[in-house]
Amino acid sequence: MHEARLNRVMSNLHAMGLQQTLVCDPLSVWYLTGYHTEPMERFFALYLAQDGNRIRSTLFVNKLFPSAEGAADHLVTFTDTDDPIALVASTCDSSLPLGIDKTLSARWLIPLLETESCSGVRLASTAVDDARSVKDADERRLMRTASQLNDASMEWLVRQIAEGVSELQIAERLPKAYRELGASGNSFAPIISFGPHIADPHHESDKTTLRRGEMVLFDVGCKYERYCADMTRTFFTTTPTTRQLEVYNTVRRANETAEAMVRPGVLFSEIDHAARSVIEEAGYGPHFKHRLGHQIGLSVHEPGDVSAAHDEPVRPGQCFSIEPGIYLPGEFGVRIEDLVLVTPDGCEVLNHYTHEPLVIEV
Amino acid sequence: MHEARLNRVMSNLHAMGLQQTLVCDPLSVWYLTGYHTEPMERFFALYLAQDGNRIRSTLFVNKLFPSAEGAADHLVTFTDTDDPIALVASTCDSSLPLGIDKTLSARWLIPLLETESCSGVRLASTAVDDARSVKDADERRLMRTASQLNDASMEWLVRQIAEGVSELQIAERLPKAYRELGASGNSFAPIISFGPHIADPHHESDKTTLRRGEMVLFDVGCKYERYCADMTRTFFTTTPTTRQLEVYNTVRRANETAEAMVRPGVLFSEIDHAARSVIEEAGYGPHFKHRLGHQIGLSVHEPGDVSAAHDEPVRPGQCFSIEPGIYLPGEFGVRIEDLVLVTPDGCEVLNHYTHEPLVIEV
Repeated sequence: MHEARLNRVMSNLHAMGLQQTLVCDPLSVWYLTGYHTEPMERFFALYLAQDGNRIRSTLFVNKLFPSAEGAADHLVTFTDTDDPIALVASTCDSSLPLGIDKTLSARWLIPLLETESCSGVRLASTAVDDARSVKDADERRLMRTASQLNDASMEWLVRQIAEGVSELQIAERLPKAYRELGASGNSFAPIISFGPHIADPHHESDKTTLRRGEMVLFDVGCKYERYCADMTRTFFTTTPTTRQLEVYNTVRRANETAEAMVRPGVLFSEIDHAARSVIEEAGYGPHFKHRLGHQIGLSVHEPGDVSAAHDEPVRPGQCFSIEPGIYLPGEFGVRIEDLVLVTPDGCEVLNHYTHEPLVIEV
Repeated sequence: MHEARLNRVMSNLHAMGLQQTLVCDPLSVWYLTGYHTEPMERFFALYLAQDGNRIRSTLFVNKLFPSAEGAADHLVTFTDTDDPIALVASTCDSSLPLGIDKTLSARWLIPLLETESCSGVRLASTAVDDARSVKDADERRLMRTASQLNDASMEWLVRQIAEGVSELQIAERLPKAYRELGASGNSFAPIISFGPHIADPHHESDKTTLRRGEMVLFDVGCKYERYCADMTRTFFTTTPTTRQLEVYNTVRRANETAEAMVRPGVLFSEIDHAARSVIEEAGYGPHFKHRLGHQIGLSVHEPGDVSAAHDEPVRPGQCFSIEPGIYLPGEFGVRIEDLVLVTPDGCEVLNHYTHEPLVIEV
């Protein structure tokens, strides 16, 4: 499995004219080696180089981290008082350009640029991101399970809707609920929003308590064996007004129009456009301010979003969110989000929790 | 308050020969402006430039984020389809070098290097880090309160010690306990370790349950109004063996020796050396593998650690951890950690929970 993944990465690098690269994103290193650590501010990188017909891998790991024995062809360990950049520089081929992971921070990149480690640097994360974007069989299974558990969490979340409960109370109970369902916690800080807070798509859950009649939004995700889920549903706590229902149904139509068109070959930008057009035609265009979706996998936001700016065709094995929303500041908002997994001739919607407008009496 | 902080940063930049810099760490931006957002993979930066006798600040914010109105002299907003690096390039003085935040990722730095935005780049975070390192009166008050709440959480944690409880159960209950105490959650993923797990200083809490007789380590921290606490205590659940008590008392002596010597002018490396010597003289030197401590504030790990590699003198207002440990693989471990705040003539130990070896019967 790791060999197949490494081969895809090296073939992508070859197409970019690169024979050596640094992979720094800890999730990418795990994806390619099975070794995981959270390096925080410490240096951590997997160096990959084409070596004739094979790939040579060298892992740079602080001695403070768990042993990485066997994770790469070569292991270079160091302490907090060593200079890891000097170690990298002496490993690289100084006559060739070096691919750089987009997550490598300036704290390491600027000193690296001051060494004679390579003939120049080039952003090269796309080589790994492209491999991670197309899920293999193992990953497809994990993505499905993560979203099944997330669907189940939505049943649990609905049971938390009660007059006087706070956004934060629900947010804090969620990790335990996930664990009881068999997931391993949040894939991101859950967005639990009541009433006018829903109009801020990035609202941070706070101590605001739910009042009868307010709407409720849950934008939540769990992890299952490192893979992320992500879904959103919006609920009523009293019979919706005509306007609320019109907004809800517009968002639902935007979501379902987009999901119905996902298949290999369609452009990401076309999917965004289709959903956006539904909202624009209903007169709410200015109130849908964000991209339609993002790819997802080991990380909750992966590169290659579903937006006007992304004109590439969708490929089988890719997984992304479809999350149109309408946000009416000071009033309310609606967002409905599912994950879809692209199949050879269409897509599998990974979330099965209903899109029907539900009134949860409190 | 923000003006005083900006002045300190600009004076530090001046000493480095810089007249313009990019501040990207969201906590540093908050520190200098009062505006906070979590940009994740999106571009976010505060540009500071010397403009005659005054400082000109320009904040680059994605339109998706909350309004930053009033946070800086100039506000530059953009959408996901705009190129923020082009906007930065047109703001910078291309005839001067540009300071770069160490957290700026290669995804933005490499494109920035390809523009004509400046005459060269230099790592310049130390200008802000140095200001953040020396806490002003407001910050000292918040650091004290955060550690008082953390002390109180230790009382709560001790009450969770029971046969059959799992590390993860305690870890998951902790954020709620913090909130009930008046804190706003974890400052880092708590390390709750039982028995032999304690020998791994970075153990991730798991489903392991506590057995009678095993030792228990809590390395935990809350946040209070964005400021971080961090402390560690190690407990027995049965009368300790002679060896366990010897290890415990050695770590305690290392901790207290270090805390007693903290005052302005002493070198960080001298404090590390003093604690390490206590452990070496007791014959456990090879089992204390990490630095003695780290600075702390808005972030749980701030630059300028308490280690052999850091030869600068301690200054009033600095706050850092003193956390010696002895780790015996396959057996057990002990770590005792407090935060100290440097005063004009010594230090205030911010944690007051006892260092006495405690046996919690289960």
